[in-house]
Amino acid sequence: MRAITQQSFGAPEVLVPADLEQPQPLPTEVLVRVHAAAVNPVDAMVRAGAFPLIGQPPFVLGWDISGVVEEVVPGVTRFEVGDEVYGMPFFPRAAGGYAEYVAVPSRQLARKPRNLDHVHAAALPLAGLTAWQSLVDAGGVEVGTRVLVHGGGGGVGHLAVQIAKARGAHVIATASAAKAEFVRGLGADEVIDYRAVDFTEAATDLDVVLDTVGGDYGPRSIQVLRPGGVLVTVVGRADTALREATLAAGRRFAGITVEPDHVGLEGLAALVEAGAVRPFVEHTLPLAEAAEAHRLVESGRTQGKIVLTV
Amino acid sequence: MRAITQQSFGAPEVLVPADLEQPQPLPTEVLVRVHAAAVNPVDAMVRAGAFPLIGQPPFVLGWDISGVVEEVVPGVTRFEVGDEVYGMPFFPRAAGGYAEYVAVPSRQLARKPRNLDHVHAAALPLAGLTAWQSLVDAGGVEVGTRVLVHGGGGGVGHLAVQIAKARGAHVIATASAAKAEFVRGLGADEVIDYRAVDFTEAATDLDVVLDTVGGDYGPRSIQVLRPGGVLVTVVGRADTALREATLAAGRRFAGITVEPDHVGLEGLAALVEAGAVRPFVEHTLPLAEAAEAHRLVESGRTQGKIVLTV
Repeated sequence: MRAITQQSFGAPEVLVPADLEQPQPLPTEVLVRVHAAAVNPVDAMVRAGAFPLIGQPPFVLGWDISGVVEEVVPGVTRFEVGDEVYGMPFFPRAAGGYAEYVAVPSRQLARKPRNLDHVHAAALPLAGLTAWQSLVDAGGVEVGTRVLVHGGGGGVGHLAVQIAKARGAHVIATASAAKAEFVRGLGADEVIDYRAVDFTEAATDLDVVLDTVGGDYGPRSIQVLRPGGVLVTVVGRADTALREATLAAGRRFAGITVEPDHVGLEGLAALVEAGAVRPFVEHTLPLAEAAEAHRLVESGRTQGKIVLTV
Repeated sequence: MRAITQQSFGAPEVLVPADLEQPQPLPTEVLVRVHAAAVNPVDAMVRAGAFPLIGQPPFVLGWDISGVVEEVVPGVTRFEVGDEVYGMPFFPRAAGGYAEYVAVPSRQLARKPRNLDHVHAAALPLAGLTAWQSLVDAGGVEVGTRVLVHGGGGGVGHLAVQIAKARGAHVIATASAAKAEFVRGLGADEVIDYRAVDFTEAATDLDVVLDTVGGDYGPRSIQVLRPGGVLVTVVGRADTALREATLAAGRRFAGITVEPDHVGLEGLAALVEAGAVRPFVEHTLPLAEAAEAHRLVESGRTQGKIVLTV
């Protein structure tokens, strides 16, 4: 099968097309014909060796996938051949999504939202599950929850704003002036231009703050939370000082790494099918141009997802 | 750490104590101090090389575990150090439960039922999730469902009877005369002594049949299902002829392999804490006697679970 592999850690050029063996699904797994695979910042870090989660090369990167079930191992009942599915298999262990086929545990897949094509569905799992697990699992966001999303125009942020709104929360977001209209269009009740306004003066008594930005956003967010409120961070998860300061102030702390889980994928799919959530894709490139996709992700100049078509 | 490993496929004697490196949990994972690990028939098959799921030795067997969270990798919020947890990590890939420590993805764990000790909690995941995924996920068992469980006194069967009853189903079970009282005590509304009575004459119009026995139980079960009812089998999952015959008769077919999933573990824990489900443990042995535990499992003469204490 066609795939993108690498023989060493390094710059985007280490990503090269190869003809590899098709993976054999084990019991509990299905074989998915990948139609689209998104490229995430974590992919670039693993490629470069900055985050060597999946051991030494050679390996095949790629967690965010959307495709069609090609083969079901007997014993799996959740899917049938021909089902359209999406997911983030095996993260953070080796998965191999930059390829024509990938073997996936059935409980790490869900049905693709019917109103998304494969390109948009592939853009959803990693960023969408990060937002879901931050807001729903860690934040308990529901009707009436007061939520502040830092970086409401970003990859995780734009999905978080939509998810929080869809669940009935009052949603405040920080964003640049250039993104204010975009973020308002996602459903934010209030958008704070972080360059013009100090958010600590514009927001107070919040139940949940989700920080996707980092720097001093975390420490400064403690004071805008109500007592018992929760600071959820997807950037400062290992920041012990931030954790201690949050707890000392009588607020809760949740540092998030996204985890594969069908429950969140199903929840996201339902919101997408209800028209409440939609991921933003900026570029699609063919699989063979994976190196160029990594350059785009690393440029820091993209606003939406970069997706490879397979 | 103390562990049981094997250098080759073979008889129970290949299982030997060893001093191994403690596993390092990755992001999304916790390190669990194992207190108990159950021994399942699949363990014995993998040990012998009959079902080489996890590659070539050396490896550490053991999926069913109960223990205490020793370390939480930053980014995991579902558990804290000291939490009592249980699960079936990584099945059917390598997990390594016959050991003092095991690294486990957080979404493959749930809180241990408060009213079970570690020995009984370790006895629950593989058999309990098999029953849960058969009845709840594949069978849709709920209040008023008419269910027949073949082998109601067995490892999966005795949990299936309790789960179905707890969900409000009308539960019929086949069992030997010797186990009839045991199965009735689990809550079965009707127990059919399979040697004295032909179950096809004693049961009809069923919504769900769960077959844990095999042989001709599968084919003969088709006729006792109502049109549209489902034959769930944990033994004939790859039996294409049985599948075809079931579909040809206008019934549905679901062959089950158990899959790691926190949802079922949480559901089981709730039923256990409500007093509705309890696993049956027959023997406990210290970890060092893993070979003897495998002999007991392979003897075919045990009725309840064999559990290693660590």
